[in-house]
Amino acid sequence: MGMVMKAKEAADAVYNDIRKRVEEYASQGHLPCIATILVEGDLASAYYAKMKQKAADKLGVTFQLHAFGKDVTEQEILELIAELNADRDVHGIMLELPLPEHLSAAAIEQSIAPLKDVDGVTPFNKLATVTGERGIYPATPQACIRLLKHYGYSLAGKNVTLVGRGQTVGLPLFHMLQREQATVTVCHSRTPDLAFHLRHAEIVFAAVGRQNLITRDMVHPDLVMVDAGINESDDGTIGGDIARDVADDVAAISPVPGGVGTLTTAILFENVLLALDYQLSEQEAEQ
Amino acid sequence: MGMVMKAKEAADAVYNDIRKRVEEYASQGHLPCIATILVEGDLASAYYAKMKQKAADKLGVTFQLHAFGKDVTEQEILELIAELNADRDVHGIMLELPLPEHLSAAAIEQSIAPLKDVDGVTPFNKLATVTGERGIYPATPQACIRLLKHYGYSLAGKNVTLVGRGQTVGLPLFHMLQREQATVTVCHSRTPDLAFHLRHAEIVFAAVGRQNLITRDMVHPDLVMVDAGINESDDGTIGGDIARDVADDVAAISPVPGGVGTLTTAILFENVLLALDYQLSEQEAEQ
Repeated sequence: MGMVMKAKEAADAVYNDIRKRVEEYASQGHLPCIATILVEGDLASAYYAKMKQKAADKLGVTFQLHAFGKDVTEQEILELIAELNADRDVHGIMLELPLPEHLSAAAIEQSIAPLKDVDGVTPFNKLATVTGERGIYPATPQACIRLLKHYGYSLAGKNVTLVGRGQTVGLPLFHMLQREQATVTVCHSRTPDLAFHLRHAEIVFAAVGRQNLITRDMVHPDLVMVDAGINESDDGTIGGDIARDVADDVAAISPVPGGVGTLTTAILFENVLLALDYQLSEQEAEQ
Repeated sequence: MGMVMKAKEAADAVYNDIRKRVEEYASQGHLPCIATILVEGDLASAYYAKMKQKAADKLGVTFQLHAFGKDVTEQEILELIAELNADRDVHGIMLELPLPEHLSAAAIEQSIAPLKDVDGVTPFNKLATVTGERGIYPATPQACIRLLKHYGYSLAGKNVTLVGRGQTVGLPLFHMLQREQATVTVCHSRTPDLAFHLRHAEIVFAAVGRQNLITRDMVHPDLVMVDAGINESDDGTIGGDIARDVADDVAAISPVPGGVGTLTTAILFENVLLALDYQLSEQEAEQ
């Protein structure tokens, strides 16, 4: 059985650091605040919002939940975002996905002020994630790399296979791995022989969103695997992109749940403090 | 000796198509016009500008050369770009690189109107190249793929090794290869064993800018290679990233000169017409 790279310890370290920084900000009169926009009707959306609320409460971060009924118009959401963008007491703005079909996530996300975009979904932050310039990078790909490093693995010069190339996790992760100096192969649904690319990898990141896509026959005993998939089975349990029994045949693997997702929530709050820093710098520059 | 994938035929086809389209535009009262900004003092910059002028003359595209002395200030260039952005008779704006050290290419490029940015260097078009959304994509990575297809090769499902990850060619090419459904491995200066990744590839793109980086010992007889490198030797001759004698040991290879660079110039003018299309659509929408 390979090492199971649980995220709790790494996440706790991040939370402890955030708690201290929140106190420092508070002593200077700044109360970090995150606003979440939720359109009712999707269970996963509601669950994620609730998780964030719980974490915010523990950290002393103010949490605003802006819940809309499922018939809300795009215009109503855009008006709320304009208000939140202008509100100096709100430092992070998040939109819970998925949305009902009549709403365009892209159009809504674009309207968030880049300095408050703690999910890294605006064009400004997407491009910053690509180029490595100053900005707010999405939390999930950050969590993938941080978890690996917490367990002492380095990426420079390694052969890395990244399975998945979505705009939310895979592609931003690809760019972050470039800056870590890894040699990255990006596999996807049109890759004829996924097993070939797993067998030749030293480290694998899975970010597809298809439960049990990666199976025992595809791996090798020296492989280190990070699973960013969060998939709900028919029986309601949560599993990753990597089949559970793969853990027996590799050197190390991150569990689902209790892995990348756990650290992602913590890093999201790091992003809130980063956003607050950016906003305070900008306000200073304006004066 | 493998097939030599010369670009002349493909470039001529593009030029013929452009010539026809230029005539059509002219008959509707639109004379396609490209403006090039050149800061004197660099031979390569001056050479590229001259090449474009020659091509423009042949195509019936109006060519404006805006040449500055090497002591020009950033402000002077920004003022010119503001004028060109506002000028409805100018459809493409290009900045020749490299610039003298006191000028920031990034700051100047950012000021170009995205719809006139025929080199695809503005943040808007860089992000469009990443996401595949509507925009103007840089010509060199387009030329790499087009040349390969001209010779009947397809990319979907292929194992592709991309050597180089620069912002100008490598990274945009990576994203375009994703949309071609290739499985791409990105190698770079920190890849310990480049030869390994070439031996396992079906198609290789080289875009590093280091002459003779890839040598005979790294390749195999079934390999198809596209060389986007343009490097000047001490003796003044031009060579690619792939050593010349590699041609003997692979299935197909693009020459330097006479390969990617030749097709790039042609595609740049396609971009000018695309830019003109976008501008006309926008003007219609405004009315």
